[in-house]
Amino acid sequence: MPPIFENNAQRDQYFMFEALKEAKKAFKKEEVPVGAVLVQNDKIIARGSNQVEMLKDATAHAEMLCLTAGSSALSNWRLLKTTLYCTLEPCTMCAGAMLLSRIQTLVWGAPDLRHGANGSWIDLFTNDHPFHQIEVRSRVLEEECSLLMRSFFQTRRQKSINSVFGSDESA
Amino acid sequence: MPPIFENNAQRDQYFMFEALKEAKKAFKKEEVPVGAVLVQNDKIIARGSNQVEMLKDATAHAEMLCLTAGSSALSNWRLLKTTLYCTLEPCTMCAGAMLLSRIQTLVWGAPDLRHGANGSWIDLFTNDHPFHQIEVRSRVLEEECSLLMRSFFQTRRQKSINSVFGSDESA
Repeated sequence: MPPIFENNAQRDQYFMFEALKEAKKAFKKEEVPVGAVLVQNDKIIARGSNQVEMLKDATAHAEMLCLTAGSSALSNWRLLKTTLYCTLEPCTMCAGAMLLSRIQTLVWGAPDLRHGANGSWIDLFTNDHPFHQIEVRSRVLEEECSLLMRSFFQTRRQKSINSVFGSDESA
Repeated sequence: MPPIFENNAQRDQYFMFEALKEAKKAFKKEEVPVGAVLVQNDKIIARGSNQVEMLKDATAHAEMLCLTAGSSALSNWRLLKTTLYCTLEPCTMCAGAMLLSRIQTLVWGAPDLRHGANGSWIDLFTNDHPFHQIEVRSRVLEEECSLLMRSFFQTRRQKSINSVFGSDESA
């Protein structure tokens, strides 16, 4: 039975946790931990986790894979009346894809200070788009989403240091 | 034997004609006629033509398919020292993908007044990007690229009118 939500705050927390599950899958595969789920009528119709390194494809962001999977699920490139949950503020590529796909609502978790296209680097959502506007809710489970990213980059830095200087264990 | 070019003007014309071949393939399949080729050391390493309707996927722009094919050809998501030729000014999604893929140079044909991300709607290339800058040359074979687009939309409008009022042939 699908969950029943009293308001968007409950709904957003629930589905952002699902997006976080996808981000953790990416983490385990040593990919930058970003995840996304696409929701229609309170049901998840598609999932995506970042696969840039595995697929050797810079376009294989979680959001892109999720939008493509959603189009496949609906047999339509127009993802009308859907909400995309993603753990990170989208980059310009993903933001552009969301506008093209006509999603209704975007909910994101942690800001992306370098590449974010909802205010961090540039804002593609408040700048009136010629044919589509997306409702945005941001910083949902921000701490959890940010923590996963920080943890990933700390681990990667530590591995990089160990490979140069040797780890304590090998000392 | 690869062609020898005396300057970028010759080079750009040659490869834009190749991108136009891809755009014409899209036209024949009743897709918006946009094409792209990716070039490294004056050799085409990947091609793409718009397949949004066939794949039912709003992300299946010619440029995206071409970048993904290029990554596959080089077994690397970093498309260093490559030039992407596309018949249309890129949208925000494709422009974002080019920045992420680290292409060196972009050459485009016709402006896209509604969605263009190199000045028509927004400009993602002059706005200093936090980790990558792309050299851009624009309006190469503009007339040929624009004509193909205009012809496509005129044909589509005529078909739409005929489907409502009947064509002369059926009268």
